[in-house]
Amino acid sequence: MAGNSFGTLLKLSTFGESHGMAIGGVLDGVPPGILLDMEAIQRDLDRRKPGQSALVTQRKEPDQVQLFSGIFEGKTTGTPIGFAIFNTNQKSQDYTHIADSYRPSHADYVYDQKYGFRDFRGGGRSSARETAARVVAGALAKQIIPSIQIQAYVSQVGNVCLDKSYLELDLTQTETNDVRCPDPKKAAEMESLIKSIKKEGDTIGGVIDCVIQGVPVGLGEPVFDKLHARLGSAMLSINAVKGFEYGSGFHGVTMKGSAHNDAYQTDGSTVTNHSGGVQGGISNGMDIYFRVAFKPVATLIQAYTTINKSGEVIETHGKGRHDPCVVPRAVPIVEAMAALVMADFSLIRKAQLNRTHEF
Amino acid sequence: MAGNSFGTLLKLSTFGESHGMAIGGVLDGVPPGILLDMEAIQRDLDRRKPGQSALVTQRKEPDQVQLFSGIFEGKTTGTPIGFAIFNTNQKSQDYTHIADSYRPSHADYVYDQKYGFRDFRGGGRSSARETAARVVAGALAKQIIPSIQIQAYVSQVGNVCLDKSYLELDLTQTETNDVRCPDPKKAAEMESLIKSIKKEGDTIGGVIDCVIQGVPVGLGEPVFDKLHARLGSAMLSINAVKGFEYGSGFHGVTMKGSAHNDAYQTDGSTVTNHSGGVQGGISNGMDIYFRVAFKPVATLIQAYTTINKSGEVIETHGKGRHDPCVVPRAVPIVEAMAALVMADFSLIRKAQLNRTHEF
Amino acid sequence: MAGNSFGTLLKLSTFGESHGMAIGGVLDGVPPGILLDMEAIQRDLDRRKPGQSALVTQRKEPDQVQLFSGIFEGKTTGTPIGFAIFNTNQKSQDYTHIADSYRPSHADYVYDQKYGFRDFRGGGRSSARETAARVVAGALAKQIIPSIQIQAYVSQVGNVCLDKSYLELDLTQTETNDVRCPDPKKAAEMESLIKSIKKEGDTIGGVIDCVIQGVPVGLGEPVFDKLHARLGSAMLSINAVKGFEYGSGFHGVTMKGSAHNDAYQTDGSTVTNHSGGVQGGISNGMDIYFRVAFKPVATLIQAYTTINKSGEVIETHGKGRHDPCVVPRAVPIVEAMAALVMADFSLIRKAQLNRTHEF
Amino acid sequence: MAGNSFGTLLKLSTFGESHGMAIGGVLDGVPPGILLDMEAIQRDLDRRKPGQSALVTQRKEPDQVQLFSGIFEGKTTGTPIGFAIFNTNQKSQDYTHIADSYRPSHADYVYDQKYGFRDFRGGGRSSARETAARVVAGALAKQIIPSIQIQAYVSQVGNVCLDKSYLELDLTQTETNDVRCPDPKKAAEMESLIKSIKKEGDTIGGVIDCVIQGVPVGLGEPVFDKLHARLGSAMLSINAVKGFEYGSGFHGVTMKGSAHNDAYQTDGSTVTNHSGGVQGGISNGMDIYFRVAFKPVATLIQAYTTINKSGEVIETHGKGRHDPCVVPRAVPIVEAMAALVMADFSLIRKAQLNRTHEF
Repeated sequence: MAGNSFGTLLKLSTFGESHGMAIGGVLDGVPPGILLDMEAIQRDLDRRKPGQSALVTQRKEPDQVQLFSGIFEGKTTGTPIGFAIFNTNQKSQDYTHIADSYRPSHADYVYDQKYGFRDFRGGGRSSARETAARVVAGALAKQIIPSIQIQAYVSQVGNVCLDKSYLELDLTQTETNDVRCPDPKKAAEMESLIKSIKKEGDTIGGVIDCVIQGVPVGLGEPVFDKLHARLGSAMLSINAVKGFEYGSGFHGVTMKGSAHNDAYQTDGSTVTNHSGGVQGGISNGMDIYFRVAFKPVATLIQAYTTINKSGEVIETHGKGRHDPCVVPRAVPIVEAMAALVMADFSLIRKAQLNRTHEF
Repeated sequence: MAGNSFGTLLKLSTFGESHGMAIGGVLDGVPPGILLDMEAIQRDLDRRKPGQSALVTQRKEPDQVQLFSGIFEGKTTGTPIGFAIFNTNQKSQDYTHIADSYRPSHADYVYDQKYGFRDFRGGGRSSARETAARVVAGALAKQIIPSIQIQAYVSQVGNVCLDKSYLELDLTQTETNDVRCPDPKKAAEMESLIKSIKKEGDTIGGVIDCVIQGVPVGLGEPVFDKLHARLGSAMLSINAVKGFEYGSGFHGVTMKGSAHNDAYQTDGSTVTNHSGGVQGGISNGMDIYFRVAFKPVATLIQAYTTINKSGEVIETHGKGRHDPCVVPRAVPIVEAMAALVMADFSLIRKAQLNRTHEF
Repeated sequence: MAGNSFGTLLKLSTFGESHGMAIGGVLDGVPPGILLDMEAIQRDLDRRKPGQSALVTQRKEPDQVQLFSGIFEGKTTGTPIGFAIFNTNQKSQDYTHIADSYRPSHADYVYDQKYGFRDFRGGGRSSARETAARVVAGALAKQIIPSIQIQAYVSQVGNVCLDKSYLELDLTQTETNDVRCPDPKKAAEMESLIKSIKKEGDTIGGVIDCVIQGVPVGLGEPVFDKLHARLGSAMLSINAVKGFEYGSGFHGVTMKGSAHNDAYQTDGSTVTNHSGGVQGGISNGMDIYFRVAFKPVATLIQAYTTINKSGEVIETHGKGRHDPCVVPRAVPIVEAMAALVMADFSLIRKAQLNRTHEF
Repeated sequence: MAGNSFGTLLKLSTFGESHGMAIGGVLDGVPPGILLDMEAIQRDLDRRKPGQSALVTQRKEPDQVQLFSGIFEGKTTGTPIGFAIFNTNQKSQDYTHIADSYRPSHADYVYDQKYGFRDFRGGGRSSARETAARVVAGALAKQIIPSIQIQAYVSQVGNVCLDKSYLELDLTQTETNDVRCPDPKKAAEMESLIKSIKKEGDTIGGVIDCVIQGVPVGLGEPVFDKLHARLGSAMLSINAVKGFEYGSGFHGVTMKGSAHNDAYQTDGSTVTNHSGGVQGGISNGMDIYFRVAFKPVATLIQAYTTINKSGEVIETHGKGRHDPCVVPRAVPIVEAMAALVMADFSLIRKAQLNRTHEF
């Protein structure tokens, strides 16, 4: 396997399986001298952790992170930050029934084909537990760019979706309910949908919207590393994600250019923001916003049919503790990946800032 | 600027401005011994080039590529292939009117902010002319993986969209019409829509679908370099792209897991393919398919209002030769970027193929 | 800071300070299915660890590695291997005297200048303790390429140097003495030199030779990633290294081409091996051999003069437990870095092996 | 093949064979707004080009570079600079005699083994002609860091070597003679040695010293990307290089720490400079100096014995126009690679410069 690293000047490398000893990583490129808010890191981890509400899996994982290096007297030193979350509450026996069979729409089959065998306990490396390392790194990245605000929220669960843009919502309400939807009425509808789906032993998909504010002009690199291409890549790398759109997105294709173009105001800001804060791959100082589609969780508690390693059809059903809908817990993951992208481009931007060649 | 390279073992680095001397690049990592089909490369370039139909810009660019290296007696040698397309028909005077003003929803403003000044002729590096280099590299990449078929087509222009999946379409019809839509009736509707939009001096968006067939199991790397994350990043890096979804995409979020999961057949294939050929970031042997949203072209021929460098409001209109809709010419670009991703992962896969550690 | 990653398909990212909580890393790209010899890893760590003989520092660090991930039922899974060595015997009080002063020829001054402050305990990230993570990764890398043998040994301490090439030595004798010199007589001379230097509170430099055997033809990439360039970079990245030469090295410059050229035998092997097993940056199947120069350790126990942060001259002397000569403990580090390079190129080679383009 | 790219924020990708259509590359990451001195680029190319004196090969290659992109109104735009030198004077017939045989100590054999066949004309990609692209990029890199001076010179040819350090030499004399040695007397000896070697149809090796002055404190990254490790890698990637040492180098191993350590002066500078301007992998503001060993050129005009593809012994001799000693022409190549390293680290340094996390 390769592909366990992310970023250019701010580079995250992660490791860990769901039921291994630990999940963790190395974050290289954090600038020196940042007085770390350790509680903010744990707070983001707690937003992601299982067992936090009736809507999510009832696994109890304390998810306490240990930072091994790169910090001295409370401040970052500029050296890499190694970290790990030790696994404490794994129930591997819940998974022995899948050791020889392939759960539909899971990574079980392709891992066996690619690697010859797999660590089947809890999905091994393909488990969404891997994202805990991303949340730690993202929480650190947020502290590199304190003037940039990144806020994600659930905008859709199944067919229940917000009919307002982020500009009409009060995003301070996001964390007031278990779904993480800033509209309390819609949140209640989503919550009741998830509960009824859970009762069926079934699952449901959803959408997370993310808004990034306070972005200076000039982040992002034209051509292959466009700001939105890196954001898209970051989001699509999160488990269960099926789609990404920014600004006007898929809806924008139906518009005429005369309606879609964002007219400039005299200060360089724009009247509308169909561009979603990015033009030619570079931030233009307006709000960046994008949407991320998550499929329904593949693991069902209800009975289903599948095949085993010998290609025989078997009947089985999910055991263990699984989420009926992934989006409430995925909100901090979306923010974390966004923070890693924005902090990396901020560092790259600094390398370019002196336009003259005087060093 | 950075970000002008793409890929890991198959690495493309490009250069070139719209009205500079040449557009080109270096493709490193092409395996040795491939007998190149030079006409296939030119054919893809011709599909992208302006002036090929009444639907697209009437600029005449011969777009003839020269391969400088990496080929001996018709075969690739394993050394990097340098190439260039010399610019021959640039009318830079068409652009002097924008030297001091910012076209709405273009990269003009952010380039000036990021770099301090810009090559305004034809949009410089931000011009879609840059994609000609991608098409050359993609046409080479296709020849690295001859058993994988990549076919893109236009599925939507404005509100005119296909109501059939690729399985119900005859993709051999794609190149029979100027829109590059495999459904002749819909193609005619799209064509007439584009023509009427053009008459208004306006532009319109569209969607390109892409299908990849003949993919072996095991391409793609879990975690950050998931196959669909790299495909998404590749597509989002193309000019004017606003969104990417694969398999069930944004529609899948409304489904229950019991309906969305792809049941296995005894040979490891699946009955449905909501996964879009990718599970856990790794190809599962089923068809890969995805959709790419393109916004309406920003350059309008009709009059519009904008600001100049001094922040003054000015009234102007587009000059020169511009596309009213980008998708017909973007079909080979989508294919090219897909080919670069698939060929790169194929090479990485070969490095992993011996599961035992005997070398 | 950046630069804490090494490798392309086999990628090591490390973290850790001398007196922090732990030293460790992530090794990504290990092929699946390797039955790991855990004792071999610990054995290499023990060869590097302090306190193993009278010649080296008397610090007692158990240096026991924990592998966190990437292993299932004793075999590698193909997922990244996270690991750490927890620090247990740090005496940070030995370093408070240098918190405000700069030890000559150490990294103290440049760290303060570059990062604004530093973790002064034990040298922080600049400590050679960082190399423990390299040894773990190198011991894993050796197991990826079992048919390639990598053997390093001490060939020079101060002015005492071997007058034989590796072909005239019995390399099985290397580990029989504390200096790690395969010639017992020279080893004794070196040992006595180190002891007398130590008595003076002074230090001395040395040279490590390394031989790599069983290398197939074709490893290494022409141009910037020549096999010897990557080996050189790997060696020069080890603390205290001042020079690298391979094959005929610096001596070769005095030779005529007619004497230096290695004549081919009919099987493609060569009569002489001034090339050191590498031609045009690519292994030619002959033994690879190179030499690495280490400067005398900078930390002196004897009194010396230096400056403090305020630029005032102070008189001081080294405290704590330091090596009088670094080369005996650096032998496994040289081997480890060589193993990382050879395993990485072996994986890259596999990606290229099918010369035809059939996948 | 891979490995044709070099650098992180300043990234060079090259292409080209000795007797192909062109040699060239793409230099990505050049900051915008640099008013380019085009003559300085050509001047460095002229220093490398063949036929410039009686000491070097009499091939006539005008080596005129064309810059394709990244420049507007004489200034860099921040976009990648594509460039090529078209080959005009290739005499491929000089090489047909080696199409089926392997020149000793050349890359012929390993290329055939690695790639299955090779472009034998002039050595193809393994020819030192490849370095012309490095010289172009290096000349551009020098203009990114005008306050840093990079001066290389020949310090040894065969057994004739300078007995003075760079501090005792007048480096303005380097270009006054054909050998590029700043000591006129030694230069004359070297010149006469090369001429007599040439008369024998033989070749001889040499050493190039390089001094880098005006370097700010703080360039280079600890651990794997130490400043001297990147310089060493850069030098070892040049054709015919066998060794690299910096500061006290191999000689330093014989010194005691008490003599080797560089005592600080109150301003942070050091009395001696055995460190060679680098401590812990980071520049300390003192002069950087290093030495690069070049083997004797492998191509002999005199008769020699070798094997052909069928493994049969054949007698042959060199044809064409070859250098009897590579070092006079390699001086600008050493400078170019040094400039690429220093400019890349300068850009990385800028990303780190604000020690506080305010952006």
